Amino acid sequence: MTSQSFFNRTTPVAFAGAESHDPLAFTFYDKDRQVMGKRMEDHLRFSVAYWHSFTWPGGDPFGGETFNRPWMHGGEALELAKQKADVAFEMFRLLDVPFFAFHDVDVAPEGETLQQSNDNLKVITDIFEEKMQSAKVRLLWGTANLFSNRRYMAGAATNPDPDVFAYAVGQVKAAIDATHRLGGANYVCWGGREGYETLLNTDMKREYDQLGRFMSMLVDYKHKIGFSGPILIEPKPKEPTKHQYDYDVATVYAFLQKYDLTADVKLNIEQNHAILAGHSFDHEVKLAFANGIFGSLDINRGDDLLGWDTDQFAMDVKEMALVLHEMLKHGGFTTGGLNFDAKIRRQSIDPDDLLIAHVASMDACARGLLAAEAMLKDEALTKPLTERYAGWESGNAKAMLSGETGFEEIAERALSLNPQPRSGRQEMLEGIVNRYV
Amino acid sequence: MTSQSFFNRTTPVAFAGAESHDPLAFTFYDKDRQVMGKRMEDHLRFSVAYWHSFTWPGGDPFGGETFNRPWMHGGEALELAKQKADVAFEMFRLLDVPFFAFHDVDVAPEGETLQQSNDNLKVITDIFEEKMQSAKVRLLWGTANLFSNRRYMAGAATNPDPDVFAYAVGQVKAAIDATHRLGGANYVCWGGREGYETLLNTDMKREYDQLGRFMSMLVDYKHKIGFSGPILIEPKPKEPTKHQYDYDVATVYAFLQKYDLTADVKLNIEQNHAILAGHSFDHEVKLAFANGIFGSLDINRGDDLLGWDTDQFAMDVKEMALVLHEMLKHGGFTTGGLNFDAKIRRQSIDPDDLLIAHVASMDACARGLLAAEAMLKDEALTKPLTERYAGWESGNAKAMLSGETGFEEIAERALSLNPQPRSGRQEMLEGIVNRYV
Amino acid sequence: MTSQSFFNRTTPVAFAGAESHDPLAFTFYDKDRQVMGKRMEDHLRFSVAYWHSFTWPGGDPFGGETFNRPWMHGGEALELAKQKADVAFEMFRLLDVPFFAFHDVDVAPEGETLQQSNDNLKVITDIFEEKMQSAKVRLLWGTANLFSNRRYMAGAATNPDPDVFAYAVGQVKAAIDATHRLGGANYVCWGGREGYETLLNTDMKREYDQLGRFMSMLVDYKHKIGFSGPILIEPKPKEPTKHQYDYDVATVYAFLQKYDLTADVKLNIEQNHAILAGHSFDHEVKLAFANGIFGSLDINRGDDLLGWDTDQFAMDVKEMALVLHEMLKHGGFTTGGLNFDAKIRRQSIDPDDLLIAHVASMDACARGLLAAEAMLKDEALTKPLTERYAGWESGNAKAMLSGETGFEEIAERALSLNPQPRSGRQEMLEGIVNRYV
Amino acid sequence: MTSQSFFNRTTPVAFAGAESHDPLAFTFYDKDRQVMGKRMEDHLRFSVAYWHSFTWPGGDPFGGETFNRPWMHGGEALELAKQKADVAFEMFRLLDVPFFAFHDVDVAPEGETLQQSNDNLKVITDIFEEKMQSAKVRLLWGTANLFSNRRYMAGAATNPDPDVFAYAVGQVKAAIDATHRLGGANYVCWGGREGYETLLNTDMKREYDQLGRFMSMLVDYKHKIGFSGPILIEPKPKEPTKHQYDYDVATVYAFLQKYDLTADVKLNIEQNHAILAGHSFDHEVKLAFANGIFGSLDINRGDDLLGWDTDQFAMDVKEMALVLHEMLKHGGFTTGGLNFDAKIRRQSIDPDDLLIAHVASMDACARGLLAAEAMLKDEALTKPLTERYAGWESGNAKAMLSGETGFEEIAERALSLNPQPRSGRQEMLEGIVNRYV
Repeated sequence: MTSQSFFNRTTPVAFAGAESHDPLAFTFYDKDRQVMGKRMEDHLRFSVAYWHSFTWPGGDPFGGETFNRPWMHGGEALELAKQKADVAFEMFRLLDVPFFAFHDVDVAPEGETLQQSNDNLKVITDIFEEKMQSAKVRLLWGTANLFSNRRYMAGAATNPDPDVFAYAVGQVKAAIDATHRLGGANYVCWGGREGYETLLNTDMKREYDQLGRFMSMLVDYKHKIGFSGPILIEPKPKEPTKHQYDYDVATVYAFLQKYDLTADVKLNIEQNHAILAGHSFDHEVKLAFANGIFGSLDINRGDDLLGWDTDQFAMDVKEMALVLHEMLKHGGFTTGGLNFDAKIRRQSIDPDDLLIAHVASMDACARGLLAAEAMLKDEALTKPLTERYAGWESGNAKAMLSGETGFEEIAERALSLNPQPRSGRQEMLEGIVNRYV
Repeated sequence: MTSQSFFNRTTPVAFAGAESHDPLAFTFYDKDRQVMGKRMEDHLRFSVAYWHSFTWPGGDPFGGETFNRPWMHGGEALELAKQKADVAFEMFRLLDVPFFAFHDVDVAPEGETLQQSNDNLKVITDIFEEKMQSAKVRLLWGTANLFSNRRYMAGAATNPDPDVFAYAVGQVKAAIDATHRLGGANYVCWGGREGYETLLNTDMKREYDQLGRFMSMLVDYKHKIGFSGPILIEPKPKEPTKHQYDYDVATVYAFLQKYDLTADVKLNIEQNHAILAGHSFDHEVKLAFANGIFGSLDINRGDDLLGWDTDQFAMDVKEMALVLHEMLKHGGFTTGGLNFDAKIRRQSIDPDDLLIAHVASMDACARGLLAAEAMLKDEALTKPLTERYAGWESGNAKAMLSGETGFEEIAERALSLNPQPRSGRQEMLEGIVNRYV
Repeated sequence: MTSQSFFNRTTPVAFAGAESHDPLAFTFYDKDRQVMGKRMEDHLRFSVAYWHSFTWPGGDPFGGETFNRPWMHGGEALELAKQKADVAFEMFRLLDVPFFAFHDVDVAPEGETLQQSNDNLKVITDIFEEKMQSAKVRLLWGTANLFSNRRYMAGAATNPDPDVFAYAVGQVKAAIDATHRLGGANYVCWGGREGYETLLNTDMKREYDQLGRFMSMLVDYKHKIGFSGPILIEPKPKEPTKHQYDYDVATVYAFLQKYDLTADVKLNIEQNHAILAGHSFDHEVKLAFANGIFGSLDINRGDDLLGWDTDQFAMDVKEMALVLHEMLKHGGFTTGGLNFDAKIRRQSIDPDDLLIAHVASMDACARGLLAAEAMLKDEALTKPLTERYAGWESGNAKAMLSGETGFEEIAERALSLNPQPRSGRQEMLEGIVNRYV
Repeated sequence: MTSQSFFNRTTPVAFAGAESHDPLAFTFYDKDRQVMGKRMEDHLRFSVAYWHSFTWPGGDPFGGETFNRPWMHGGEALELAKQKADVAFEMFRLLDVPFFAFHDVDVAPEGETLQQSNDNLKVITDIFEEKMQSAKVRLLWGTANLFSNRRYMAGAATNPDPDVFAYAVGQVKAAIDATHRLGGANYVCWGGREGYETLLNTDMKREYDQLGRFMSMLVDYKHKIGFSGPILIEPKPKEPTKHQYDYDVATVYAFLQKYDLTADVKLNIEQNHAILAGHSFDHEVKLAFANGIFGSLDINRGDDLLGWDTDQFAMDVKEMALVLHEMLKHGGFTTGGLNFDAKIRRQSIDPDDLLIAHVASMDACARGLLAAEAMLKDEALTKPLTERYAGWESGNAKAMLSGETGFEEIAERALSLNPQPRSGRQEMLEGIVNRYV
């Protein structure tokens, strides 16, 4: 197999305009189009995820492999990893994306020992480094998989066994070293096993303290090696464990404050994880911005009627428009991007399904961005918002907030008040959004 | 109507032993029984909630009143409020509970103006004060209802209109003053409208800041008047609003840290609110203890298959046993108690349904307490827990946590480690719990 | 108050084209536009629901009235009902909708006795009849409210008390008589209390039999009076009761088969009820068509993150497009229509919020219809579907389905087969739909 | 490895009484104890499931194998299958259970062709037959796994490819033949892939017809070979597919009626599947009995806070008591039993975790049975139920149900009625149940 023969095409996917019906052409994603003073590509900063696209074989809890990828069978592990890298970089080229992201074990086989694993990772890092010299693609972030191996079944940093904690340190060090070397813009932590299956065997306080210590050391190390990007925590409420410590944005914010990590650790927010925690994607993004801990986005979608992580490709233009509207209000991404933490369905077994899924979702995001830009230019949402809170611009109101006026004084003044409610205008605002998307 | 004629009995409910089949006798709740050095009553600190038991008429979103209580019809508002108080104190006596709890509007009718409302509340406070002189019952907590009146439809402290914020200050001042005067052990804030229906019209950051300011002022005022109990926030994720700011324990903990309120504000945790947020009751209680913000409990149960607040009477002995096991580990309640934020079903229209529901649930809690005591004495759960984390008692392990050993040193040591997983023993622990309940 | 002064406008809402930003103009709903050979209005058959728009005061379980409608206060009941009717018909005119729908108690006050209630309903029926002579609006369906009054708290047809069953018969007879007289196209049954709060006090088998008998009698009566429209059952899984007998389309289909009602009873399907039962709206519609029991649609939307019936105005163009695509495949509505079982949020207190909500949602539906038409004309979804199942057109395959080939013969033939999976093409199809909406 | 050495014990688990603290002794399950005229063992008819206990390696969607069972590695497939059988039968002996259950692929390796798979199954069937001659254990049911192999990714009977349908016929024939030969009491069908991932590529009506045909042929074949047990369908709403055709009891009942299968096909009901569909276990059991389609039970528990199939060991005595109370009312199981479709958590990696989990759950079921017996003997629930519906025993009431009295006559009589609601007594009944469990 060559990587070319896998995809059966050599020309990168290109912009063809809104009227095109070619599933392998962009209808809205026009990378050089200017949006609020920046190229569309520079706004959206798309990233392909190595794990779902190249490492997942199509299995689920009730069924095995469906994809039968050539690089998953019948070869020496490191050799297959190289084949996989060829296909991956070919896909980055075909999709013309500016970024990718990976876990250590996605790209390099685990060895018998930590040393062997580290060695394997270095081999692949060398290969990536070389490939990246001639490729456009950059590394959005790297991370370590601390959840698949059975040694982590009861947690990594939060394991009852301190040797597992130590092992996780060893693995993360290798992963952030590799990320740093490849110029990664961020380093991500997803605590898939940092949580519990049952409280009957769990000392939650102790485990949180372990996690706090782990993150503090990682921050120190990041500074030491001069890694300038942020550490990102990715919240998820449940799955694989019954309950995870990084439940949602608010929970992680509580954790970061308690262990004094808000300056160095930000959040990588995912749509599917948001809804599993009972929040809209938009809510989680706004909450992160409100508390100064926004980092990056894992872009996908969950199924509102299912209770697990389906990680489908994002296709909802309206949802993206609202999130990108918030992004644009804050000036857009700094180190973050839109990382496709999304997997094609296990029945989508053709190689071009991989391309088509990315293309369709990139188009949905691009439409969202254009709608967000238009709404922002027209002040379609921002103006009604400002007007709604205009009363707080008065002197009396400001004095209440600043602390100038105190409780008793306000209570006294309240005796002469009879405030009347005003319409929240929800349906009108929903109609307005519909006119833009 | 006299309050006696309402319940059609004058003898308080008494302990009759486990073999009794009388629904109006206690089978496990034996108030003077010693449990770990304290009377059962002093452990459980049961409290009757005024709102569900005396103020709710039995309606739901698709149907009106079912209870037809005599004090809800055909009289002058303040007169009816006094009748209601008679029935309430008679029920406290019949159930022989040590506490009750109320909102301002539960006990006294709202007036046309804030002044009138305050005046009505004072009339009732006088009556309560007098009644309490000859009654056993004490006040667990008071609170202000900032969610039913249409003026609060878009929030109280978080309202876009600063006059509503001010009005809420006025109302809360009167409520905490009344609570203080009646010797309340705590003062509670439940932010039923502090949240949003749609993010399209909401400035979340601004509203959080308003809420932070509000709470800070309340804390200052509490100190000023010498109210020694804590302010308690009651988390709830949703309902009545689509999304509430006090989502769950973790979210409130983030809020308290951000606005520097952890010293004075604790949590009032409710089972039904816990499960609506995706957590077990036990989880929320443990998380609050782990972070030093545990306050009190609203005891009820939600329906695991329904998505709204059903506020049913708690009947699950195992669930109570686990929560009370945690309570006992921490020495039990200080200012808090078990407040029945629970309502009889709207079809339970007979007066004795009110008594029977409390009796059945008090018994379930008492059984839970006895099971918790036995487990604790036998170290049935605590011993396996200690053993599971025993590895962290080694010098190496402690050095990792204390910061003595750093990231790189640990990573270096990890190269020689090959930690093996150990059984989590979940089923064995579940079997153990079953043998105690 | 006059009805004109309530809405503060006299000109019906009109089509203004996609570029309009007036919330009180249609941007896509162009009633006379031809869609697959029929006027848009005749396809969509919009209906305004009396209850949400004119009878609901804005309350929720934690708060009271917010709307303060003039016809809800300070007058004699029947007089207020007439004022309400004036406003309702004025709104039908302003929205230029072809249909409306009502419950008996929405339009006429309940009396002290069934006879009085029936009399009140007749008074209002007279008024409606007269108004409809000069109005465009027609009656999509009528129904009886068998869930709000406390007599129905434990069910109507399924009540443990046979007198309540009888009372429900009396009330339904009056409601279908009124519906018939006003030329209603359908008669609807929603069993809001036909279900249970707890199985501990419920004989499910007996209650199902009661319900079966009730429906059979209603069908007989319908035939007797020559009511030509279908009886429609509206499925809903839960709320107000914990569990309702008409759970979803499949459950009602089982019921209709068991009690031999499939010929006369069809389904009225609602989006919010669908998702509460764990299904997509599209699923429920397709299942009803597949089993020949499709009737009509209650058009609204639930909140995917909330567990109760929010009944919001439908705003999702894609969801409507898929449902209307299915409708168009089957030739569109016969007696059914798109009934707005939707309520403005309780904070939307301005009169024009009522109009704006309908306008925005009508536009979303119209966009959905146009997308559905385009997809159907292009065979965008139907052609891939036909191709996917093409194998079943072979003789061998048909013989298996028809019964010509039997189990053992097929098993024998299978020994020589090695069927290979083909891509399900989900992402490509999702991308296709996105290009149409 | 020998099977003895795996479990490290040779004595079967025995009854030791309620005071025992040995996790490997029964505290309530006393097999020979008489319960309503039958031995406890004959009531509960426990069955061990081959798949979870011997075939599942401990993986989940985010992690691989944890159990490292000796029979899963490093041998020829059929040889390992024999080792597995040795361990399985040893466990049946140690637990002293009367039944087991299996899928074809649990016990015998799949071959390259259907013929090879069938041959492997025959080899194992021979071995089982021989083992069963000297063992107590009997076969509760067999089934075919039509969901794990990629050929079934888009369904078995409902596949768009008729060759897959045929292949499934071939596989099921071999599985029911094996079941028949081993004296299986039932044959089960679980349609794990009979459903859809997206409606965009699905013709639901056609697929239902395929499934109906498939089941009809299977019923014919069962009669032909003289298999006297029922065919059982196991409902599940979702997972692995987004939406499954055998959603819940009601949905399967609709299907069975439509395709005229009610006489031969019954239901195998599982707790975890019930709650995923929004129903209590008790509801599903009662509904099956009410419609004459009850078959057997898959006994486990889901996590009320998680949205996927956790298949944990049942530990809730109250839940079992209510289900077994219903069973006892109907005379208990005929061909069915309590099959442990339950898996130890993936962290429970010790061999004795397998035994302990079964023991703890068998005890919970036994306690439930004893509570059910006591409630039934005392008529604790049945008497209040009879009294609640007593009104329907009157002549007037019976005439309404029988059809003797018609709609108009009843409506006429209703004019003189004013039925008053009676208390539903929910809390009292909940308290009663608590006194028995």
